[in-house]
Amino acid sequence: MTGNVVCLGEVLLRLSAPGKELLLQSARLECHTGGAEANVAVGLSKLGHRTAMVSVLPNNGLGQAAAAELRRHGVGTESIQWRDGRMGLYFLTHGAGPRPAEVLYDRAGSAFAAAPADTFKWRDLLKGAAWLHVSGITPAVSEAGAELAFQAMIAARAAGVSISFDCNFRSRLWGDRSPAAPRLLSGLCELATLIFGEQRDIDFMLGTTGSGNDLAKRQRQAADRAFAAFGNLQWLAHTDRTRTSADVQELSATIHARDRSFTTRTHPLLGIVDRMGAGDAFAAGVLHGLIEGLPLPATADYGVAAACLKHTIPGDFNLVGPGDVDLFLSDARTDVRR
Amino acid sequence: MTGNVVCLGEVLLRLSAPGKELLLQSARLECHTGGAEANVAVGLSKLGHRTAMVSVLPNNGLGQAAAAELRRHGVGTESIQWRDGRMGLYFLTHGAGPRPAEVLYDRAGSAFAAAPADTFKWRDLLKGAAWLHVSGITPAVSEAGAELAFQAMIAARAAGVSISFDCNFRSRLWGDRSPAAPRLLSGLCELATLIFGEQRDIDFMLGTTGSGNDLAKRQRQAADRAFAAFGNLQWLAHTDRTRTSADVQELSATIHARDRSFTTRTHPLLGIVDRMGAGDAFAAGVLHGLIEGLPLPATADYGVAAACLKHTIPGDFNLVGPGDVDLFLSDARTDVRR
Amino acid sequence: MTGNVVCLGEVLLRLSAPGKELLLQSARLECHTGGAEANVAVGLSKLGHRTAMVSVLPNNGLGQAAAAELRRHGVGTESIQWRDGRMGLYFLTHGAGPRPAEVLYDRAGSAFAAAPADTFKWRDLLKGAAWLHVSGITPAVSEAGAELAFQAMIAARAAGVSISFDCNFRSRLWGDRSPAAPRLLSGLCELATLIFGEQRDIDFMLGTTGSGNDLAKRQRQAADRAFAAFGNLQWLAHTDRTRTSADVQELSATIHARDRSFTTRTHPLLGIVDRMGAGDAFAAGVLHGLIEGLPLPATADYGVAAACLKHTIPGDFNLVGPGDVDLFLSDARTDVRR
Amino acid sequence: MTGNVVCLGEVLLRLSAPGKELLLQSARLECHTGGAEANVAVGLSKLGHRTAMVSVLPNNGLGQAAAAELRRHGVGTESIQWRDGRMGLYFLTHGAGPRPAEVLYDRAGSAFAAAPADTFKWRDLLKGAAWLHVSGITPAVSEAGAELAFQAMIAARAAGVSISFDCNFRSRLWGDRSPAAPRLLSGLCELATLIFGEQRDIDFMLGTTGSGNDLAKRQRQAADRAFAAFGNLQWLAHTDRTRTSADVQELSATIHARDRSFTTRTHPLLGIVDRMGAGDAFAAGVLHGLIEGLPLPATADYGVAAACLKHTIPGDFNLVGPGDVDLFLSDARTDVRR
Amino acid sequence: MTGNVVCLGEVLLRLSAPGKELLLQSARLECHTGGAEANVAVGLSKLGHRTAMVSVLPNNGLGQAAAAELRRHGVGTESIQWRDGRMGLYFLTHGAGPRPAEVLYDRAGSAFAAAPADTFKWRDLLKGAAWLHVSGITPAVSEAGAELAFQAMIAARAAGVSISFDCNFRSRLWGDRSPAAPRLLSGLCELATLIFGEQRDIDFMLGTTGSGNDLAKRQRQAADRAFAAFGNLQWLAHTDRTRTSADVQELSATIHARDRSFTTRTHPLLGIVDRMGAGDAFAAGVLHGLIEGLPLPATADYGVAAACLKHTIPGDFNLVGPGDVDLFLSDARTDVRR
Amino acid sequence: MTGNVVCLGEVLLRLSAPGKELLLQSARLECHTGGAEANVAVGLSKLGHRTAMVSVLPNNGLGQAAAAELRRHGVGTESIQWRDGRMGLYFLTHGAGPRPAEVLYDRAGSAFAAAPADTFKWRDLLKGAAWLHVSGITPAVSEAGAELAFQAMIAARAAGVSISFDCNFRSRLWGDRSPAAPRLLSGLCELATLIFGEQRDIDFMLGTTGSGNDLAKRQRQAADRAFAAFGNLQWLAHTDRTRTSADVQELSATIHARDRSFTTRTHPLLGIVDRMGAGDAFAAGVLHGLIEGLPLPATADYGVAAACLKHTIPGDFNLVGPGDVDLFLSDARTDVRR
Repeated sequence: MTGNVVCLGEVLLRLSAPGKELLLQSARLECHTGGAEANVAVGLSKLGHRTAMVSVLPNNGLGQAAAAELRRHGVGTESIQWRDGRMGLYFLTHGAGPRPAEVLYDRAGSAFAAAPADTFKWRDLLKGAAWLHVSGITPAVSEAGAELAFQAMIAARAAGVSISFDCNFRSRLWGDRSPAAPRLLSGLCELATLIFGEQRDIDFMLGTTGSGNDLAKRQRQAADRAFAAFGNLQWLAHTDRTRTSADVQELSATIHARDRSFTTRTHPLLGIVDRMGAGDAFAAGVLHGLIEGLPLPATADYGVAAACLKHTIPGDFNLVGPGDVDLFLSDARTDVRR
Repeated sequence: MTGNVVCLGEVLLRLSAPGKELLLQSARLECHTGGAEANVAVGLSKLGHRTAMVSVLPNNGLGQAAAAELRRHGVGTESIQWRDGRMGLYFLTHGAGPRPAEVLYDRAGSAFAAAPADTFKWRDLLKGAAWLHVSGITPAVSEAGAELAFQAMIAARAAGVSISFDCNFRSRLWGDRSPAAPRLLSGLCELATLIFGEQRDIDFMLGTTGSGNDLAKRQRQAADRAFAAFGNLQWLAHTDRTRTSADVQELSATIHARDRSFTTRTHPLLGIVDRMGAGDAFAAGVLHGLIEGLPLPATADYGVAAACLKHTIPGDFNLVGPGDVDLFLSDARTDVRR
Repeated sequence: MTGNVVCLGEVLLRLSAPGKELLLQSARLECHTGGAEANVAVGLSKLGHRTAMVSVLPNNGLGQAAAAELRRHGVGTESIQWRDGRMGLYFLTHGAGPRPAEVLYDRAGSAFAAAPADTFKWRDLLKGAAWLHVSGITPAVSEAGAELAFQAMIAARAAGVSISFDCNFRSRLWGDRSPAAPRLLSGLCELATLIFGEQRDIDFMLGTTGSGNDLAKRQRQAADRAFAAFGNLQWLAHTDRTRTSADVQELSATIHARDRSFTTRTHPLLGIVDRMGAGDAFAAGVLHGLIEGLPLPATADYGVAAACLKHTIPGDFNLVGPGDVDLFLSDARTDVRR
Repeated sequence: MTGNVVCLGEVLLRLSAPGKELLLQSARLECHTGGAEANVAVGLSKLGHRTAMVSVLPNNGLGQAAAAELRRHGVGTESIQWRDGRMGLYFLTHGAGPRPAEVLYDRAGSAFAAAPADTFKWRDLLKGAAWLHVSGITPAVSEAGAELAFQAMIAARAAGVSISFDCNFRSRLWGDRSPAAPRLLSGLCELATLIFGEQRDIDFMLGTTGSGNDLAKRQRQAADRAFAAFGNLQWLAHTDRTRTSADVQELSATIHARDRSFTTRTHPLLGIVDRMGAGDAFAAGVLHGLIEGLPLPATADYGVAAACLKHTIPGDFNLVGPGDVDLFLSDARTDVRR
Repeated sequence: MTGNVVCLGEVLLRLSAPGKELLLQSARLECHTGGAEANVAVGLSKLGHRTAMVSVLPNNGLGQAAAAELRRHGVGTESIQWRDGRMGLYFLTHGAGPRPAEVLYDRAGSAFAAAPADTFKWRDLLKGAAWLHVSGITPAVSEAGAELAFQAMIAARAAGVSISFDCNFRSRLWGDRSPAAPRLLSGLCELATLIFGEQRDIDFMLGTTGSGNDLAKRQRQAADRAFAAFGNLQWLAHTDRTRTSADVQELSATIHARDRSFTTRTHPLLGIVDRMGAGDAFAAGVLHGLIEGLPLPATADYGVAAACLKHTIPGDFNLVGPGDVDLFLSDARTDVRR
Repeated sequence: MTGNVVCLGEVLLRLSAPGKELLLQSARLECHTGGAEANVAVGLSKLGHRTAMVSVLPNNGLGQAAAAELRRHGVGTESIQWRDGRMGLYFLTHGAGPRPAEVLYDRAGSAFAAAPADTFKWRDLLKGAAWLHVSGITPAVSEAGAELAFQAMIAARAAGVSISFDCNFRSRLWGDRSPAAPRLLSGLCELATLIFGEQRDIDFMLGTTGSGNDLAKRQRQAADRAFAAFGNLQWLAHTDRTRTSADVQELSATIHARDRSFTTRTHPLLGIVDRMGAGDAFAAGVLHGLIEGLPLPATADYGVAAACLKHTIPGDFNLVGPGDVDLFLSDARTDVRR
């Protein structure tokens, strides 16, 4: 076991229509545990890393089930705080062919969103950690969430813990608080060692505008703007997705350092099983590469491999292990593993 | 088709663990539509009455599915208002043997609870109606809910529409607003023609105390207090339940008029399938008897028969028809209907 | 393997609502293969006897699936004739507590009902057989069915094959042809060695009336009438069922010979899983006893044991083996067989 | 809500093997409600139109469930007649890869097929209607069905209601009555305002023969023959399907007016979920365009969009709303709708 | 969190027929993790204790899933050794009414059974532990298993860790090694502080014979023999079960100290959901009482309450918490917990 | 019915994760019966041939269920020997997109592997047979298995029964016995009339090495080596598979005679449902062609058609009939079979 990653964020229950049905077309829902940062924690745990989830959950059957599911996949749940309030939910209708998937959030007023900024004792929680992972969803859910994120990242920087930040900008979550988003997100980015984001995220935070038809050049120029703006930033990473249908897509990934960029080859995604959590699987893969000291190109490959494999796993969590990633990257085109 | 009943209240989605599993023991939830007043509307519709649901639902896939389910069972949904907000949910773990069922409410902040008091044009909605049915849950969910209930009942009285009110007191729903509950509930009861409630409800509203070991006498004395306090009241009805286990219970029912009371015989409930909504099934059965002009004893029998049969139907709705009730009351002990 | 029993009758597909749901309450149906005589054939096969089904099935996916299911349980299907026409179906809603089960037949116009009387070459089919089993359903489905039954039983008698006949009178199946039922059924009974039926069946066929409060005496007197009327009759057998609810019942059985009657003790049926096919399981158990040369009391016990155990098996078929029956009759009250 | 469409036809229950299983490979069937005209009614209802189903159903649990399902999706069921008889069924095995889907009809002798020609009071039923939709299946099921169709269409023409007719020629349904099919179908077409059909249908009805390798020209020439033969005809519409496998196909559509034709672009169908009802979804989309007064090219696009989206929805009904169609036509290639 | 219990034993996967079906009657199996000692570990974890599982699992998908399931319920899995070999399985057919449940073991040759005696470093594993729990199944599975059990218990005694031992004698598991069973089991009992067993177990180990019709006296006399034979023994505990059917039973429990015995009242078990693991739930309840320092009668009550509640939970694990036990013991007969 | 094929081999139960889930991701397993030779037996039975399975099964619920499943599909099970021991199992995780399927064998120590060489009376079993089918899995499971295979094939040759042998080399099954594999397999091949195998199998057995980039030439040269080495060999057949993903592949097949080779065209496999058993489906198709006396090219086409269709059927068995194969080969691109 290598590394030691602490993830801060809300844990959600995802309730999805079975198979390709519309929401409540039949009287059944499938349940999975998710949440962007929990997905990263599980992804890293499955890749062999010691991880801990820092979150707030309601002290009822739903919250306990979500924590149990994290524990099942090897994520430490000792730092979870149990409070009154409701469980954050989201309802998912899977996409099919030309019909895109649809997410209906029902997370307002959750125990996590209502948690005060001093909920966690960060000095204790970060003891022995190598990385802290936070996402832009936490500042989006509430003012207190923004404060939580800042306190965590400031404590990490003080403790010499590297910081991974996934922008994850979703305007619907910010709602009325959208005007504050650029300021808050860029404030957090100033503390980050590694940012998951692309040109649109960067320009949104910095108020800049990228242009030009050459996507790679546009992304690199945005990366330059990010490196200029964010003093602690060492790496910027993102995927590029081409969508033919809900089931047939393509994925590549790029990692930017201050002085160079690497883009993986483009992988076809045929027969997608579950597209949710692929970005978080990518984040886990990249963190794995950085923790293990892989070269940047290998790190990008590891990230995109993890992301591609995630599309084959039902649920938000990426449950593949290092053997699966290695097999994917070996290009072996294995028929059946016996 | 006889009668014409308008039901006001929140429509809920119930998400339940399959079979006898604990909540989220496996990764599946079964979905049913419910809500005390919706249950009454469906129960009456199945017994052959024209019913309409007056409610507020969120304009998303969950709200639309709930309305569709009401329509499926013949309840009019034209008066439902579509607004922003979330769907009221509740999570159910079925009981088994000595382990009682468990309900986890997640209905705070719903579109219904947030609806302003002037949401509905009652004069139009009550046109042609014979009965309005309201429950004590509506004033419990919010201040606006209390206002909604009063406006509906005042309009009904003005229009000569009889009023059915189910006390349905649940302290957890009232929360901080509990101190206002007796005043609000008894205010509503003053407008009611028919009240579903028993000694505890009445004494809670009136601040009185019933005593004595003879249950029947205690109930009748409470009824006398209710008839004294509530000037429009013609009938008071309730069931009595004896619980051996989650699966084995007994049920009887009583209807009080100002001058007399009738208690049915006690029916064994063996192999209970789903206990939720039995009280609402009773209410529908009693309303059926009153609408059809059945004698009071037959009305009480009809109500308890509907309630007993509800225990055999999965979900909150009582889907039995008049033929099922008649067969139950005939004591035929039919083996298999071919 | 002992004995050799040929069963003539229609094979049906049963489509049932899952668990305790009402028909099409959810969008799923469970499928089982059934039919009174097929149930007897499977029951005997599981008890170790060589059995063959003589029937007509439509040559499509439904008919083939039904035959495959018989084969799965060891019943010979070589004598089944494949013809145009539809598959006989029935829809089942399981009972629960005070709500009795409900059967909706959809078997009119089936390939079996339309089969001409000369469909089968009985001399070949009965070669080596010890028993032929027929039921009163076959003459009920069509005029041709009545002719089929007569031809089979006449051929059996000519070949020295014992004949088992289950009256199975169901007025809904006879429909317009009801007036002919007594004549046809008693005609068949004249050929039978063993009849499954009780006082009501006998009096219906003979136009007689049994009376008196002593059930046992009434049954014996009816048996006497049957033995007088039906010259080939050696045994008459039936069960007696007391029904508390759909899940809690009691069962005993009686076998009458010309000169004596034996009644088993009464067995409680707690937690009934599936009540369909219990009569056919009894018939198979009695036939087993007669084939194996058990004394009459042991034969009655074997029959009622098979019938009781059938109530614990989902579907129409009784899938228990001799070990299960022996354990039942040993009164061992085994906790868990390990 | 715009428009007002009355649909006449048989409502069927579809019983399908789960997933990609063969029929009765496992012991479960999934149930959906369908029938060509019911599919059109639901499709239009979901697109925002007021629709009513005119049909005959058996007065049992199956018929009631089918009507409830129509009501669930907003279709008026007040005009359905309840009669003795059986429910029309069909069994479906989904296709997979090179194995095409398979339909086994079991609808002979249904309550609808047996309904007398004077079952409906058309003057009342068509009051306020803008369109009547009928298909060629109704004259196929029985002589009485043909009479029903004619009476409905004659009454519609008298009342100034536009008539939509879907040829839907299926020789297996006509059976012995096939020789009468061209005469009956063309008689109905003479009354129609809008016909869904293509060259093969037209030539079958008119006894003519289309030829030539240019499909578009052949279709236009057939359209010319149809416009010449059918005096009330204003529009003729059809789809063209290319089939690579059961899961991968292509679809385009054409609408012909007397003086011009429009063909949409060809849409790939990748990962088909359920191919049944796609033609009916197309009909609903085209009717929507005509009712809303869209230009013909936009009408054709709307129809083919509805048809393409139907392939992503389990069951026979097309449950997509206007927002889904607009998103499809916008070419947005949305990843996940949040 | 109080106490610290280490459990040694094999972890099994249980594959069970769904509902009341016979094994492989349908093509589905439900999976649960079990094993006598794992059941105790989970039961204690749910009651709030820190527990750790010491076992050997195969390093494949099955072994990893079993460990994950333990972790999900809060049991420490760090001490599990991963080796080559197969996963121990058992197949379960649930009982129903008069048909008892049936267990088919398939655990021969498992990774656990093949583990060498020096697999674990007991000094480290027992650090900080208050109790070690072992059962008689471990010496039964193999000679090495017997050695494992002795080494663990000797190390515990040396470290001052109390020892709980559940006799769990099952002759089928001992097979050829049965003659050695009394010697090995009594050798282990000599080291035990607490034994779960009753007269039959004790007499089997000691070669003695209990007699007399008074069950309580017979049990106490056997307890006296055990206290005489086993020098470290402080408590002996067992349940008494009366079986009416697979679904309806009764349970009481007794704890013997050297100088006194306490028997709980007898609890009815109506509507049993899953009988497996009830004995292990009892063990966990008794250990909870002893760890928490409850008086012996309260300890016996706690144990029998846990055992009764286990009958309501699907699977081998007892997932109830202290609140459930307290509610059970309060005799509240709660209807629905809201 | 033509031909008469006896298949010798182990029958396995396959336990697979539902849909695209990882093994035990949820708590359910789907069960299918399989085993290479059983797959061939069922495939041939479905194509209209009389087949019999010769095997050893444990006399418990699992073994009986496996035999019942063979019988369901028309395979004779009278020759199966029932012995003590365990059932051979394998666990399957389906592949998805870039993630290949994974098989976990759990068949060591099965009743079949432990069967003594003289278990079967081959002279009787082969009476009337035209072909014996054996695979290289049987000699791999145990020394006794190798002996079984030799005895069967020697008896077949003596009786003039043609012998089909599928190399099916899987190193994991041979384990420690791998060094003996070439000798044993080539010994069996010397007796075979028809071998299923390709260059790698042949070179493994003969210790030779094929080379060159032209796959067809390399295969033909290996075939020449096989014909030279194996004196009874008349035909050598194999498929060639190209794998884009778990769901998208291509398949062609080749049959070599001593003097000529035929290769079919390459068929795309889109939307693969279940890849297991495709090789056995090919074997059954080729045997069908040889038994029916089809020309070699048609035989190869029949084999590859059967193999392609197998990819559309859940489970190991190929359940398609001759009509399905004919439709596939007709290139009809049928939309829906009605």
